[in-house]
Amino acid sequence: MKTKIFLLSILLLGTISLSAQRRILNVPELPGYVTLKCDFHSHTVFSDGNVWPTQRIGEAWRDGLDAISITDHIEYQPKKQYIPSDHNAAWNIAKSTADNFNIILVHGTEITRKMPPGHLNALFITDADSLNRPEFMEVIEAAVRQGAFIQWNHPGWKSQEPDGIPKFYPVHQELIAKGLLHGIEYSNEHEQYPLVMDMCRDNKLAVMGNSDVHGLIIEEFSAPDYSHRPMTLVFAKERTHESLKEAMFAGRTAVWYGDHLAAFEMFAAPLFRSVVTAGKPFKDDGKSIWFELSNSSDLPMDLTGGPEGAPAELKLPASGMVVVKADRKYLAEPISYNVSNIITGSDSVLRVEIMPAKM
Amino acid sequence: MKTKIFLLSILLLGTISLSAQRRILNVPELPGYVTLKCDFHSHTVFSDGNVWPTQRIGEAWRDGLDAISITDHIEYQPKKQYIPSDHNAAWNIAKSTADNFNIILVHGTEITRKMPPGHLNALFITDADSLNRPEFMEVIEAAVRQGAFIQWNHPGWKSQEPDGIPKFYPVHQELIAKGLLHGIEYSNEHEQYPLVMDMCRDNKLAVMGNSDVHGLIIEEFSAPDYSHRPMTLVFAKERTHESLKEAMFAGRTAVWYGDHLAAFEMFAAPLFRSVVTAGKPFKDDGKSIWFELSNSSDLPMDLTGGPEGAPAELKLPASGMVVVKADRKYLAEPISYNVSNIITGSDSVLRVEIMPAKM
Amino acid sequence: MKTKIFLLSILLLGTISLSAQRRILNVPELPGYVTLKCDFHSHTVFSDGNVWPTQRIGEAWRDGLDAISITDHIEYQPKKQYIPSDHNAAWNIAKSTADNFNIILVHGTEITRKMPPGHLNALFITDADSLNRPEFMEVIEAAVRQGAFIQWNHPGWKSQEPDGIPKFYPVHQELIAKGLLHGIEYSNEHEQYPLVMDMCRDNKLAVMGNSDVHGLIIEEFSAPDYSHRPMTLVFAKERTHESLKEAMFAGRTAVWYGDHLAAFEMFAAPLFRSVVTAGKPFKDDGKSIWFELSNSSDLPMDLTGGPEGAPAELKLPASGMVVVKADRKYLAEPISYNVSNIITGSDSVLRVEIMPAKM
Amino acid sequence: MKTKIFLLSILLLGTISLSAQRRILNVPELPGYVTLKCDFHSHTVFSDGNVWPTQRIGEAWRDGLDAISITDHIEYQPKKQYIPSDHNAAWNIAKSTADNFNIILVHGTEITRKMPPGHLNALFITDADSLNRPEFMEVIEAAVRQGAFIQWNHPGWKSQEPDGIPKFYPVHQELIAKGLLHGIEYSNEHEQYPLVMDMCRDNKLAVMGNSDVHGLIIEEFSAPDYSHRPMTLVFAKERTHESLKEAMFAGRTAVWYGDHLAAFEMFAAPLFRSVVTAGKPFKDDGKSIWFELSNSSDLPMDLTGGPEGAPAELKLPASGMVVVKADRKYLAEPISYNVSNIITGSDSVLRVEIMPAKM
Repeated sequence: MKTKIFLLSILLLGTISLSAQRRILNVPELPGYVTLKCDFHSHTVFSDGNVWPTQRIGEAWRDGLDAISITDHIEYQPKKQYIPSDHNAAWNIAKSTADNFNIILVHGTEITRKMPPGHLNALFITDADSLNRPEFMEVIEAAVRQGAFIQWNHPGWKSQEPDGIPKFYPVHQELIAKGLLHGIEYSNEHEQYPLVMDMCRDNKLAVMGNSDVHGLIIEEFSAPDYSHRPMTLVFAKERTHESLKEAMFAGRTAVWYGDHLAAFEMFAAPLFRSVVTAGKPFKDDGKSIWFELSNSSDLPMDLTGGPEGAPAELKLPASGMVVVKADRKYLAEPISYNVSNIITGSDSVLRVEIMPAKM
Repeated sequence: MKTKIFLLSILLLGTISLSAQRRILNVPELPGYVTLKCDFHSHTVFSDGNVWPTQRIGEAWRDGLDAISITDHIEYQPKKQYIPSDHNAAWNIAKSTADNFNIILVHGTEITRKMPPGHLNALFITDADSLNRPEFMEVIEAAVRQGAFIQWNHPGWKSQEPDGIPKFYPVHQELIAKGLLHGIEYSNEHEQYPLVMDMCRDNKLAVMGNSDVHGLIIEEFSAPDYSHRPMTLVFAKERTHESLKEAMFAGRTAVWYGDHLAAFEMFAAPLFRSVVTAGKPFKDDGKSIWFELSNSSDLPMDLTGGPEGAPAELKLPASGMVVVKADRKYLAEPISYNVSNIITGSDSVLRVEIMPAKM
Repeated sequence: MKTKIFLLSILLLGTISLSAQRRILNVPELPGYVTLKCDFHSHTVFSDGNVWPTQRIGEAWRDGLDAISITDHIEYQPKKQYIPSDHNAAWNIAKSTADNFNIILVHGTEITRKMPPGHLNALFITDADSLNRPEFMEVIEAAVRQGAFIQWNHPGWKSQEPDGIPKFYPVHQELIAKGLLHGIEYSNEHEQYPLVMDMCRDNKLAVMGNSDVHGLIIEEFSAPDYSHRPMTLVFAKERTHESLKEAMFAGRTAVWYGDHLAAFEMFAAPLFRSVVTAGKPFKDDGKSIWFELSNSSDLPMDLTGGPEGAPAELKLPASGMVVVKADRKYLAEPISYNVSNIITGSDSVLRVEIMPAKM
Repeated sequence: MKTKIFLLSILLLGTISLSAQRRILNVPELPGYVTLKCDFHSHTVFSDGNVWPTQRIGEAWRDGLDAISITDHIEYQPKKQYIPSDHNAAWNIAKSTADNFNIILVHGTEITRKMPPGHLNALFITDADSLNRPEFMEVIEAAVRQGAFIQWNHPGWKSQEPDGIPKFYPVHQELIAKGLLHGIEYSNEHEQYPLVMDMCRDNKLAVMGNSDVHGLIIEEFSAPDYSHRPMTLVFAKERTHESLKEAMFAGRTAVWYGDHLAAFEMFAAPLFRSVVTAGKPFKDDGKSIWFELSNSSDLPMDLTGGPEGAPAELKLPASGMVVVKADRKYLAEPISYNVSNIITGSDSVLRVEIMPAKM
């Protein structure tokens, strides 16, 4: 009766612009693509989450996301005593709110088995109820017939994989061989699994990063510890459901978690260049030059391993800049750095070259 | 399966003390009593709220509250298509979590009618399902037979009372005459109704202040706008369910909302004295004295209307202090101020006298 | 000996990029110009300020400014007992730090007289000591011979103008007639003087906004009350000392204070368009359209006075967006709003037209 | 002329209580003593600091300190070109402001030599100018004749002691033998020297912790990294200059830096007990008990090494509480923990015993 709720007040469109504010996330872009900010793993009261589905849309809108999926467990229904199982309910409830806020709501579900195979999300499905059947491979095949993108969730989660090391079991190899696996979570909630970078590169799968939120984004991922939830960046041709799906099957993704980016080098290198800019030298004393290095994105950049005659480290804050003092020889040759917070593989980071702009 | 939720992780007692932290609220005390911090009005998915009942316990614990009530609407069940009506469900679900966290969970419900009579909470009931019946007065009488404290909610809510002015209708006068009304909300969510102070004083009812939260406390009442939700302060003999109930029926309550306190003068005066302390003069130049005035509570104090020879205004921050410079004559006579943020009636505020401590 | 100071550590260039971070201010741009963020009024221990001159450079660099002036009082030297008067000392001390950080340090001073004429800053001078002479008009003429831009400071400051209303005295009219006055402060520290917009427009003077800081920027202008100090935005051809000076004499300035911008309409209109963008309609139900309206700057936009069939108010947060729901007729005609926080005159605000992008 | 400065406005006593607010620090207390919060090491423009002396009083008052000392270098005067040396100037300038704000201003100076002996502060002196003489031991003896407490500063500072390990040189042993050394800095600015705990215990010296601020407290020690500057806690009989001095010579001190306390066990144990309180068990299921453990101070408590049947770790937030679930046997025997953030020696921390209150 008295639906005075802050975020749900955004449903009442007359007041939307007064009561709710959407943040713009400044993320790197890939030339020719738009970077969609996405979270493909979340829960509601329709499995073991603690919120009503519309809350997930409100959170996504406030946080500046473009697309989310609600992926309640099919096989785990701890609130069944109070809420009868209805695996499409969350999607049905949230869809009109998503439409009103330009959030792409990807119909999804979490197929929830012991390891192996563990937990897998089926994204871009059309009916979750029909996936409630015992035989695992049948479920995956049925999902893929619906058009699903299959994501293997938290492969190193210690409750399922006590040593914390993700590894392919025969069932995963079978999925890959049959073209039934399309992505793996590198980052889930507060965890990361470095080997996933290699597993995805070797098998042409998309790297994924998601919140897997059960409670509240604002309680789990807020300042001063976090500036945003973990998310999958998808490099799509357009901000549409179709383009999003195309990009994911094509593997054009990266993961933004905390102050880190995990991205294959072919994406990481142009992403870095799209936001980091060196100015012209503004001072030259005949021995050294001084120039500004700026970062227009919300991702800080930690440059390390600088060469002789240049700063050993440069911490480029989000939406900030530093002054670089370096030998004059660097007017003519680039300064090489590791970007220690841009992960390109299980034991590699992005390597970049910096040069001041021409006078 | 993966109940990794921050606040619900507090359910897993092994990790509780690591993952969740309870804030201590520093509130004024009444000599001989303990001040219980309470919120007697909140909603969950079992009516038109957006969260699972345990979330309300988690919020209360984090926020430093002693007691709450979940008061889902009996007559308004907008999620019935997905969640069959069960008016005791929220209490049944939340009770064991409350027990694990020393939160007094008051069994309650909201009787939801058009004005008049409007909305009323029945608190300290034993069975909400049995209150689902058409005739209003019968419902109230049944609740009171269960031991209920009846609270009239948001009497000036504009959706029900277009001029925003709370007023007694015959039905309310009948309730009072029969001893079936025990408290009225002075503060509900973001609104206050000044006349309620007089209505309660004249009829020996308790003044109440509650969040009426449907979404999330952290989204509605957080910094920089708010340091806490609106709440009812109850002056109880002990921190127990029985003492709480005794104090409420005895009318020993006050309302803390934003940076304001609403309390009858017999409570407000000793509350002020329990937290505001004047030090000895630390400087005396023969004409003026200087002394510290400190406030140990989380409620700032706005002193206004100071006399000649003393500061006209003194803003005593929460957990802070100011220096007062005043004429030497105030060594011998008190300095009178209005405490403009301690409301004692519809058009009165607390009047206090300040004197430096004796040397 | 132990110069471990945080901001001064930026002087030690080896560690600069690790210890100090410069914020990027996202301000509107004028096509063909670069917006320089400037503060032309500040003090140090060389008059009645409380800091050493290099601190002003550190603050400017951290805050993302492009240019500042230190403008110590010539005639008011309250620290003379300890610091012998040297009106060029602040500039001499701060210049090399400014050079190392790409801050344009404008040589300036404050000519400090009773009203009239009041206080005036001489900016772009070459020698302040030579301006220490009794006759006011001689001082101004000498400054202008040095190339000075003359700014009249806080013309409505109540200590000098008890009614708070700025007005031209004969001496100001004489200055204008002789071409010896070039700008007036619309905003000084925490005050604004609306009439200055008209006084500047009528006399082709530049509107100015400055901090007039004596203590610390971080103590006077920080969150939650402020996101930045008051500043003059100068629309220059390049980020150089020469371009800055050319733009100021040409009157291409605006004032950013709190969440407000004061700018003549010829600047305000393109500035608004440079940062506010309407998206294509993402929903159309045959009666209404929904589209996003985004703001890429650090200046929020408060749109009011919306027409029938469109939101009455739209609060566009800094670096944020809202959703607009409007009648379909607004596919074909613009929606007019007042931008109530962009001031174009003493009683006018910017008027804008919004239209969704073409499909 | 326009002394509108925020913190200095506190000088203008008419407005003090409106414009400036003093924070109350909640620190542990020793029975029979008052804990004075002190910073005995700071600089101003009269040596190599960046602020005017009154700024140090403003900072101290805002931060809730009781006593400070301004300790400009005698032998290092880098601003001499502009500010003639006057080693008592800072004290003379700041004293009346200190008196107006009830800040105990300890007259001090820093004797600044190469290692050995390094830098030493002379506190409670009467004339700094007379200490400007070449022979080190003569200076110390002259200071002590003035009544000075001699503090050895940052004994492990790498600019003087490349391995970072503090050690006594013969000159220090001579000072101790002659009774001319009274305290050593365990904590200086952002550094700590663990061995100082042992060096002080073995020689009956006071442990000291100070900011050594040259720039601004608010820039070096603010949220989210710091909640307060490093400080010396002095357990004095009264809040007076005399009691402060008596307590320091008696060695009744501790150091509060970041989230740590360094204190000898005879102080640390009662300090812990003064603020940490266990409640009565509020739940008992026949196997386990549940009780609250609360911390009323601004110092968090990190309990580690818990025994079987009790939580391994307990993080008690500042002004917060946790719930402890433990075996019923702990009704009868205490639960032992290390308080890993209360340092009692170079390799020891405080050991405490926790028991729930009696029913």
